[in-house]
Amino acid sequence: MTGEPLHARGTTSPARLRQAFEGEVVRAGRGVRQALAAAVREAVRGGRLAPGTRLPSSRRLAAELGLARNTVADAYGDLVAEGWLTARRGSGTLVADRADRADRADRTDGAGRAGTRPSVSRPAAGPFCSPRHDLIPGNPDLSAFPRAAWLAAARRALAAAPDDALGHGDPRGRPELRAALAGHLARARGVYVSPEHVLICAGVSHGLQILGGVLAGRGASSVAVESYRLDRQYGLLEAAGLETLPLPLDTHGTDPVPPVGTDAVLLAPAHQFPVGTALRHDRRTAVVDWAGRTGGLVLEDDHDGEFRFGHRSVGALQALAPDRVVYLGTAGQTLAPGLRLAWIALPPALADDAVAAKGRIDSSEVVSQLTMAEFITSGAYGRHVRAVRRRYRDRRDSLVTALAREAPQVRVLGTAGGLHSVLGLPPGTEQPVLEAATREGLRVAGLSRYRHERALNGLTDALVVGYGAPSDAQWPLALAALMRILS
Amino acid sequence: MTGEPLHARGTTSPARLRQAFEGEVVRAGRGVRQALAAAVREAVRGGRLAPGTRLPSSRRLAAELGLARNTVADAYGDLVAEGWLTARRGSGTLVADRADRADRADRTDGAGRAGTRPSVSRPAAGPFCSPRHDLIPGNPDLSAFPRAAWLAAARRALAAAPDDALGHGDPRGRPELRAALAGHLARARGVYVSPEHVLICAGVSHGLQILGGVLAGRGASSVAVESYRLDRQYGLLEAAGLETLPLPLDTHGTDPVPPVGTDAVLLAPAHQFPVGTALRHDRRTAVVDWAGRTGGLVLEDDHDGEFRFGHRSVGALQALAPDRVVYLGTAGQTLAPGLRLAWIALPPALADDAVAAKGRIDSSEVVSQLTMAEFITSGAYGRHVRAVRRRYRDRRDSLVTALAREAPQVRVLGTAGGLHSVLGLPPGTEQPVLEAATREGLRVAGLSRYRHERALNGLTDALVVGYGAPSDAQWPLALAALMRILS
Repeated sequence: MTGEPLHARGTTSPARLRQAFEGEVVRAGRGVRQALAAAVREAVRGGRLAPGTRLPSSRRLAAELGLARNTVADAYGDLVAEGWLTARRGSGTLVADRADRADRADRTDGAGRAGTRPSVSRPAAGPFCSPRHDLIPGNPDLSAFPRAAWLAAARRALAAAPDDALGHGDPRGRPELRAALAGHLARARGVYVSPEHVLICAGVSHGLQILGGVLAGRGASSVAVESYRLDRQYGLLEAAGLETLPLPLDTHGTDPVPPVGTDAVLLAPAHQFPVGTALRHDRRTAVVDWAGRTGGLVLEDDHDGEFRFGHRSVGALQALAPDRVVYLGTAGQTLAPGLRLAWIALPPALADDAVAAKGRIDSSEVVSQLTMAEFITSGAYGRHVRAVRRRYRDRRDSLVTALAREAPQVRVLGTAGGLHSVLGLPPGTEQPVLEAATREGLRVAGLSRYRHERALNGLTDALVVGYGAPSDAQWPLALAALMRILS
Repeated sequence: MTGEPLHARGTTSPARLRQAFEGEVVRAGRGVRQALAAAVREAVRGGRLAPGTRLPSSRRLAAELGLARNTVADAYGDLVAEGWLTARRGSGTLVADRADRADRADRTDGAGRAGTRPSVSRPAAGPFCSPRHDLIPGNPDLSAFPRAAWLAAARRALAAAPDDALGHGDPRGRPELRAALAGHLARARGVYVSPEHVLICAGVSHGLQILGGVLAGRGASSVAVESYRLDRQYGLLEAAGLETLPLPLDTHGTDPVPPVGTDAVLLAPAHQFPVGTALRHDRRTAVVDWAGRTGGLVLEDDHDGEFRFGHRSVGALQALAPDRVVYLGTAGQTLAPGLRLAWIALPPALADDAVAAKGRIDSSEVVSQLTMAEFITSGAYGRHVRAVRRRYRDRRDSLVTALAREAPQVRVLGTAGGLHSVLGLPPGTEQPVLEAATREGLRVAGLSRYRHERALNGLTDALVVGYGAPSDAQWPLALAALMRILS
């Protein structure tokens, strides 16, 4: 990127932006949205895009850069959420004033989702600069974190722990936690695993990074994946040298049996993110049969498997074939992402390789491990999960009721569970609805952003609504804002 | 490795072991000790080395495999410490009985140091199976961990934290902790850094992994290193694609100015591990001048810089050139390794690259970050460091006194500080002393194990004695055991 200014105060042209961005942007794949956002941030930070400068419409810039319009619109949306840009009804997208965007850099995670808002005080922002309502999927209600019960468990755990628990310890994680998880997972999810084959890690993505290393180290070359998923998780497997092969979707959801020669398949059978479907019974059997027949592995992402709202709870796929299914779970949705606590139940034959792939350099903090073990064995975890499950079920119910009353053209897709619902929209309306959400100060995701770039078929236009993130106080306001843009 | 048994019960021959191990062992460099240990573990686990089998002497096996005798002896020592082998006076090294080694696999970290002992109960081991005294360097006294004060800080921190502190948060780490550290490091170590350029990581090794990625990403190809260091830290830099160039040692310690064309130099100026020296005043200036003149970087490992026992405390090198020195510190020695809390003070020009290299996948647990911030700002951290500094100073004093009385031929080398001392031995005695330590149930390290494979010169035979690890109750017994093998 050259150092010359891109503008006077006024409108910058797509051609000027193209010149500035093409070094960053003209690369393949789904890094494009992030690269475009980074280039805009850099131009604003460096003064080459002054406050008040109007950016070209997403349609016009997309045409100029040869990108999909959604890519540009998503990048703009990210930058509005981060405070670099503002979107004003009738006046397009402008570079925000300095006071509005101070201290907002680096708040975007690898998937392009804006992180939590900073807790440090900052100047009050205009009504359109910072989202007022957060319905980004995947996040739990952090106001529901059981601080007192967690501290009480920490006190009991630290009182009981031997001194050497505070040392480097076992790279698999604390034995107290691995034992507690083996018991809990058996009761709650039907998982069949011995504590010695549980591996503690820092999140589902960290688990996939470890498993990508294990697969590549054993000579695997390809992993079949669902056609929609958090895009950074595709990227983690690819960074390990594995090709990701999107599985076809039909009216019953994902067809999980991979093509001949595939080494593994990554699935979220209980409640797919983002599509929201549960894997159909016969397909659960079919993919396990495939694994047994071919020696392939199933990676089971059960990140929100504890949140099923209906009468029938569907247990983990892992129980059908503990030697062929690797199970991944997390406290990031039941408690809080900041605990960085997740777990892998490993087939015994993979255990040594997985411990080696994890190493000890980024091993998990031990006090939270000891606390989580005590939290589970004391029964506090079960009580907490039941309480938040009721809370999220009530939120989903109120979402469905509000839609039936105020936006009957919107269909609620997928299974009743987890922290998000998929709202099917009339064709061609996803992008305008997202733009309306931005103007309304509402952070919500479009389904298309999660689509694998080589997906064989696409789903309907849809919103992915995370009803987990708001507090109880914020939820009715967020729901009302959502109804304003959908009705 | 073939599947045929290596033995009946009895003595296995070097030739049989060679046949079994050469696939694993015949590779270059310092992975050999670990590879040999892994091959023995595998042979024991698979039943090809039965309990009671006597292994060839380290001298004989070394000659047969073409390895240094120390390499074989160190591998045997590791396996004795882990419980796979037993060393019995007069009867050599034997494969341990099953009960002795149950559940001890995977307790060895990347540097080949045995991890903490398991807290789960296990059958009582014979007197020579498990070390009774731990003087392995680098570990603090875990019985001194301030559990009550830590919990009190956790309670205050969780009471004050906003809800969004429990989310994914800033990949640099919690702002509360970065601000607390910037203040503490300025007061305690003279480090000059703004909170926005502090990066929280999981340990000094994790920090070096991140910095290796930053350097390689900026086109660096080589890093000068001290001739003695934790060998896994050489390996981390090499894994990033950087060549490690050992610096020469002379009678004044390391000569830190790297050869022409070197991109960076990694040093522990305050108290070198394992050699124990402090970087001389004129050499501190010289290496900073080198960095300014050439645009090179200095990576300052200050892992035990808070533990200087003399009257003069030497501040961080970083203060001399905050734009050219990257500072690494850790709570792993002042508090406990299990907290997985360390920090990097970054030159502003490197900050974005370092955040990107860290990513967010293995980011640090937030409750411990919030607790550490409160622990520092409340003054509890300063009080704790002063208390344990006195404790370690007293231990070093009692070590020096005991040596003067009982082993006057042993010289104490290096600066009075940190958690370890280097004891210079008469030439040719390091290996016999280590073997005596094993028989005595004493875990202690030889200096030669830390030597870079391409080091230009070698130091005297020496023991590296970690006086930090024992509790106050264990310390007099460990010291007495050490005196028995040295006097």
